[in-house]
Amino acid sequence: MSTEALITNEPRDTRARLLAAAREEIKSEGILGLRVAEVAARAHYSVSVIYRHFGDRNGLVAEVLGDLYEETLSARRERIAQLVPPTGPITIDHLVNLVPTPSEVAKSDELRMRLQILAVAATNPALEKRVADIAQKSYVEMLAFVTYLRSRLADGVDIDERVFTVMIVNQLLYYNTLLGEHSVDDDGYRQFIRDVLTR
Amino acid sequence: MSTEALITNEPRDTRARLLAAAREEIKSEGILGLRVAEVAARAHYSVSVIYRHFGDRNGLVAEVLGDLYEETLSARRERIAQLVPPTGPITIDHLVNLVPTPSEVAKSDELRMRLQILAVAATNPALEKRVADIAQKSYVEMLAFVTYLRSRLADGVDIDERVFTVMIVNQLLYYNTLLGEHSVDDDGYRQFIRDVLTR
Repeated sequence: MSTEALITNEPRDTRARLLAAAREEIKSEGILGLRVAEVAARAHYSVSVIYRHFGDRNGLVAEVLGDLYEETLSARRERIAQLVPPTGPITIDHLVNLVPTPSEVAKSDELRMRLQILAVAATNPALEKRVADIAQKSYVEMLAFVTYLRSRLADGVDIDERVFTVMIVNQLLYYNTLLGEHSVDDDGYRQFIRDVLTR
Repeated sequence: MSTEALITNEPRDTRARLLAAAREEIKSEGILGLRVAEVAARAHYSVSVIYRHFGDRNGLVAEVLGDLYEETLSARRERIAQLVPPTGPITIDHLVNLVPTPSEVAKSDELRMRLQILAVAATNPALEKRVADIAQKSYVEMLAFVTYLRSRLADGVDIDERVFTVMIVNQLLYYNTLLGEHSVDDDGYRQFIRDVLTR
């Protein structure tokens, strides 16, 4: 089966294979170490096939990292939605528990992955455009979710929405992992969220 | 002048030249694009000289990016210190104005540089150690600065220190630049900082 035959007959399959190979390569070498030649070799294509499908290295990177970023945000959204009790009034405790704690964030690979995707986006306009589109869509969904949660708050209880729309959205807890003994712990973090939510 | 002569006679000079070449290379190719061979060529040394001085690529990267990170934080600290009136009581307005606004952050190159340094640190243990040391030292200095500012607040005025130690310290306004029409503007950001500071 020649490379040309694959391109002519199954362009979507070729594209999917290249993207799958790029993911494998990222899993083994990391996001910052992605090499087009290694991706091509892994998928058993020549490098020129990558260029034909994605324009250049940045095009391939934009697509595979954009997909990863979108999946990361979706997975987080699902995890958070499952923490909401299906019926009954929502309390401040429920809301505070929706926010990932420093220790959860430090344990997951998501933080480092997200950091690397954003750093590449800052140097790759196609990826930055894609990540911005995803971030905006995700922001609108989060806003609708917060509005829904507010509608289920007990009478007389209200929250400062900006804790989500300004603070949480701009937060990168990687700094906290760097701070060692000075880092805020889960209880201190939760207490701060509670205090600013209910001011 | 042979490479060997340089190493034997002026090891510190060789090291400084390699670091200067790495900076130049970063200026021209970006942090994520740094190649050891290009740094060596720029400094007129062989690649093996880099390995002898820095162990490996990660060692060179850790040193030059650690330096850049430290200089960035120092420059920011100096900018902020200059905004404090030399005498008289400190007001909430003064404190709010110490916090860089989204538009200032978006305009500067610092944000993208810092993001890239952190992303590399997440994959380079020597750099992560260095960046963590710098972050912890900087955190202690910031804490002392906040304590000093509080001592100069007018009678009866107080602030929630955690806005600095938990919120600002963990903030990356790159997300805000991605949010487009949904991003918070300077006035909205300042109002939020004021509200959470004075709760």
